[in-house]
Amino acid sequence: MASSDHRFSDIRRSVYAELEPTARTRQGLSATNKFLVLVTLIGAVTVVLETEVTLQTAYANLFRAIEVAIGLIFAIEFVLRVWTIIEAKPNAGSLVSRLKFIFSFDGMFDLLIILSTLLPFVTANLVLLRLFRLVRLLRIAKLGRLSKAFRSLSEAVHSRRYELLLTLYLAIGLLLLGATALYWVEGAIQPDKFGSIPRSLWWAVITMTTIGYGDVYPITSVGKVIASLVAVAGIGLIAMPTGILAAAFSDAIQKHHGDEDLN
Amino acid sequence: MASSDHRFSDIRRSVYAELEPTARTRQGLSATNKFLVLVTLIGAVTVVLETEVTLQTAYANLFRAIEVAIGLIFAIEFVLRVWTIIEAKPNAGSLVSRLKFIFSFDGMFDLLIILSTLLPFVTANLVLLRLFRLVRLLRIAKLGRLSKAFRSLSEAVHSRRYELLLTLYLAIGLLLLGATALYWVEGAIQPDKFGSIPRSLWWAVITMTTIGYGDVYPITSVGKVIASLVAVAGIGLIAMPTGILAAAFSDAIQKHHGDEDLN
Amino acid sequence: MASSDHRFSDIRRSVYAELEPTARTRQGLSATNKFLVLVTLIGAVTVVLETEVTLQTAYANLFRAIEVAIGLIFAIEFVLRVWTIIEAKPNAGSLVSRLKFIFSFDGMFDLLIILSTLLPFVTANLVLLRLFRLVRLLRIAKLGRLSKAFRSLSEAVHSRRYELLLTLYLAIGLLLLGATALYWVEGAIQPDKFGSIPRSLWWAVITMTTIGYGDVYPITSVGKVIASLVAVAGIGLIAMPTGILAAAFSDAIQKHHGDEDLN
Amino acid sequence: MASSDHRFSDIRRSVYAELEPTARTRQGLSATNKFLVLVTLIGAVTVVLETEVTLQTAYANLFRAIEVAIGLIFAIEFVLRVWTIIEAKPNAGSLVSRLKFIFSFDGMFDLLIILSTLLPFVTANLVLLRLFRLVRLLRIAKLGRLSKAFRSLSEAVHSRRYELLLTLYLAIGLLLLGATALYWVEGAIQPDKFGSIPRSLWWAVITMTTIGYGDVYPITSVGKVIASLVAVAGIGLIAMPTGILAAAFSDAIQKHHGDEDLN
Repeated sequence: MASSDHRFSDIRRSVYAELEPTARTRQGLSATNKFLVLVTLIGAVTVVLETEVTLQTAYANLFRAIEVAIGLIFAIEFVLRVWTIIEAKPNAGSLVSRLKFIFSFDGMFDLLIILSTLLPFVTANLVLLRLFRLVRLLRIAKLGRLSKAFRSLSEAVHSRRYELLLTLYLAIGLLLLGATALYWVEGAIQPDKFGSIPRSLWWAVITMTTIGYGDVYPITSVGKVIASLVAVAGIGLIAMPTGILAAAFSDAIQKHHGDEDLN
Repeated sequence: MASSDHRFSDIRRSVYAELEPTARTRQGLSATNKFLVLVTLIGAVTVVLETEVTLQTAYANLFRAIEVAIGLIFAIEFVLRVWTIIEAKPNAGSLVSRLKFIFSFDGMFDLLIILSTLLPFVTANLVLLRLFRLVRLLRIAKLGRLSKAFRSLSEAVHSRRYELLLTLYLAIGLLLLGATALYWVEGAIQPDKFGSIPRSLWWAVITMTTIGYGDVYPITSVGKVIASLVAVAGIGLIAMPTGILAAAFSDAIQKHHGDEDLN
Repeated sequence: MASSDHRFSDIRRSVYAELEPTARTRQGLSATNKFLVLVTLIGAVTVVLETEVTLQTAYANLFRAIEVAIGLIFAIEFVLRVWTIIEAKPNAGSLVSRLKFIFSFDGMFDLLIILSTLLPFVTANLVLLRLFRLVRLLRIAKLGRLSKAFRSLSEAVHSRRYELLLTLYLAIGLLLLGATALYWVEGAIQPDKFGSIPRSLWWAVITMTTIGYGDVYPITSVGKVIASLVAVAGIGLIAMPTGILAAAFSDAIQKHHGDEDLN
Repeated sequence: MASSDHRFSDIRRSVYAELEPTARTRQGLSATNKFLVLVTLIGAVTVVLETEVTLQTAYANLFRAIEVAIGLIFAIEFVLRVWTIIEAKPNAGSLVSRLKFIFSFDGMFDLLIILSTLLPFVTANLVLLRLFRLVRLLRIAKLGRLSKAFRSLSEAVHSRRYELLLTLYLAIGLLLLGATALYWVEGAIQPDKFGSIPRSLWWAVITMTTIGYGDVYPITSVGKVIASLVAVAGIGLIAMPTGILAAAFSDAIQKHHGDEDLN
C-alpha cells in the first residue's frame, strides 16, 4: 500500500512537472506543453476563420468539433492541474491548496475559458473571450530566452521613457498644428474631409505615420505645401523614436558586456 | 497685527509655491498645477471638438459653459499670480514687481488667453489662439525629467545639425530631380498631375516620404521605372536621418556615462 | 607524347581555375565567370520581359534566340566542368569524379537548368524554374567581401533572434487586437471589408506596415480613433526591429574592433 | 604709374578673394558669394514655377526679366573671374591662365549656363539645363562644415558598402520572388495589373517601399496572404539599411573620438 502510494505520488509529481514550466528541471517546454501550445494556436486560427461567414457555413461542423475537442483538452488539463497543484507546496494541506488554485486568478481564468469553449450559447459571439485563450500562452512562455529578451527590451524602453514620451508630445503637437492648418486652408473647400479639426486630425495621423490611404488629401496649392511640410515632419516622427530605441538597445548591450567584464 | 501680517505672508508664500514650479521644494507638480494642466487639456479637447458642426449644434451650451469655467479659472490664477509675484524677489517693491509681471511676455500672454476665452465675440473663430493655451503647459513643464530629456535630445540633434542639413539638401536635390524627370515623361500624358514641376513636386514629396496617397502616380513604363528609383531613394531619405539620430543619441549616452565615470 | 599530355593537363587546370572560384589564386572573378554572371542576368531579364504579352509577341524570335544561346553557353560550361572536375581531387579516379559531379546536387541542378532552357516544351510556363538560374550566381558569389558581409549581418541578426522574434509576436498580437476591434466596430457597416477577422487582418497588415493602399479604411469615428492607435503602434512595429538591428550591427562592429585590438 | 598698377593689382586680388572661396582667409562665405547663392536659388525657383502654365501666362514678363537679370549677373561674374583668375597662379602668364580657365570644365560650364539663360530660343524647353545652375552651388559649398559632414557621412556609407549592396541584392531577390508569386496568383484575375512580371514588379516596389499608392493591390485571399508576407519583408527592407547606417555613423563617431584621444 505504501509502495502504491509512493508510485501514485511519483506519477503526480511527473504530471506536475509536465504541466508546470517552473517545475521542470530540463531546458525547453515539456511535450505536454508543446501540445497545449499547438492546441491553443489551432483554437485561435479557428476563432479567426469562424468569423468569416463563407467558411462558417461550409465548415460549421468542423469548427464545432475543434471547439469541443479544445474544450475537453483544456478541461482535462484543468483537472490534472487541480490534482497535481499540491506538489507546488508539499507541506500545505491538499484541499486548501486545490481550492486556493481554483479560486485564484489563473484558475478562474482557465474555468472561464473552458466554459466559453464548451457551452455553445456562450460562444455565439464572444470572439474576444475565445481569442483571450492566447493569453494562456504567456503562462507557458514565462521561462526561457524569450522572456529574457522581453526583459532586456522593456528595460531599454523604460530607461528612455521620458525621451519617448517627449517624442509623443511633439508628435501630438505637430498633429494638432497640421490638422488646424489644413482645417483653415481646406475646411471650406472639402468640408466633409477638413471641415473640423477632428476630421483634419484623421488626415494628419494617416499622413504623419506615412500610411496615406488616399481617402483624404489636400487639393489646393497652399494645402499641398503645408501637407508636404507635415509629411517631412512625419519622417522625423519615425526617425526620432527609432533612433532613441536604437541608442537604448545599443546601450543595454554595452552595459551587459560591462557587467560580464566585471564578473 | 504683526502676527496677522505674518500669517498673511505665509499664505502668500505657500500659494506662490503652489503656482510656481521653480519655487517648489518637493519633486513633481503641485496639486494646483496638476489641476491647471487638466483644465488646459480639457480646454484643448473642447476647442478641437467645437470645430465639428454636428457637435457644436448639439452641445453648444456645454462648450460655452466649459469655456467660461476655464476663463474664470485662468482669471483667478492670474489674480493669484499677480498677488504672489512679489515672493519671487522679496526685496523689490511690490507694486513695481506686479506691474512688471503684468506687462511681461508671460503676463500679457495670460491676459490675452483669458480675454480670448471669456469674450464671446473674440472666440468666434480664433481656434489657434485658443489652442495656444496649450503653450502654457510649457511653463509648467519647465522642470523635471521631461525637460532633461528635451535638452539631451536637442543637444544630440544639434551636434549632428550639419549631417541632418546635408541629408535635407540631398533630399531636396532628389525631389527636384525626380519631379523634373516625371514632368518630362508624363507631363504630356497626365497634364493635371505632372504638367509642371510644382505639380510633379507634390508627387515627389508624397512618394519619397512613402506616404503614397494614390492621387498621383505614373502610368507609363518609363515613368514607373523612374518612380521605382525615386521610391528606393525614399528609403534612403528615411534611413539616413534615422541612422544619424541613432548614432547621435547613442553617442550622447556614451558621453554621459563617461562624465559619470569621471565624477 | 608525355609533353603533349602535360600541356593538355595544363590547359585543363587553367580552365578549371577559370570556372571554379575557389581554385583561383588571384582576387576577384575570372573573365569567364564575369561573362557567365552577365549571361545569367541577361537570362533573368529575358524571363521577366517575356512574361509581358506585348513584348513576347513583338520580340518572340529574339527571346527564343537569347534562350537558345544561354542554353548552349550553359551546356558548354557544364561539359567543361565535367571535363575539369578531376582537378578538384587529383588523386581520385577520373570517371568516378566525373559521375559523382554529374549526379551531385550542383550537377543535377545545372542539367535541369540546361534542359529547361533548351527544350521548348519545358520552358512554356516554367517561369520560376528559369528564374532559378539566378541561384547559380550564389555559387560564384561564395567568395569575397559580399559573403563576409553576409556572414557579419546574419551573425548580428542571429545574436538578436529572440528580440526580433518577440517583436514579431507583439506585432501579431497587435494585428489580431486591431483586426478584432475593427471587425466589431465596422463589421456591420462595411461587411465586405471588415465583415470577418481575416478580412480585417488584411486591413491591419496594410496599416501597421504603413503601406495603406486605400482599398480598406474605417469610415466611422470610433473606427478612425482605433485605426489611429493602430497606426501609431505601427510606427513602433518599424522602430523596434530597426533599433534592435542597429544595436546588433553596432555591437558587431565594436566586437570586431575588440578582436583586432587583441591580435 | 607703378602705384596705380599696385592699386589695380590690389583691387584684383580682393575681387578674386570675394569670388573664390578657397582664396578667402576668413571663415564663411563672402558677401558676393552669398548674393550669388541667393541669385542661383531665385533662378531655380523661377525655373520651377515657370513650368506651371497658369503662372507662365500671368507672369511671363517677370520671369523673363528675372532670367535676363540672372544671366547678366552671371556674365559679370564670369568676366570678373576671367580677369582675376591670374591671382590663382601669380607666376603663370596672364593670357594663358585666362584661356585655360575659359576652356576648363568650370569655364565652359559657366559659359553654357550664361548662354542658356540669355538666349531665349535656347531656354525654350531646357528646364534641366537651367536647373543645372544649382550645380554651381557645389563650387561655393566646397568649404566649411557641410563638406566635412559630407565626407564623414560618405566615409561611413563607404565603409559599409558591401553590407548595403547585400541588402540591395536581397531586396531585388525579394522583389522578384514577390512579383512572380503575384503574377501566378492574380495574373489571370487582374491581367492589366499582374498580367506579367514587369507589371507585378511595379506592385512589388510600391509595396516593399511601403508607399502603397493603391493603384495595384491583390484581391484574392491567396494574393493577400502573399502580399502580407511581402509587406512584412518590406519592413525588413527599411530596417536593414537603417540599422547598417546607424551602426556605421555610430562607429564613425567612436573612431573620431578615439582619434581625438590619441592627439
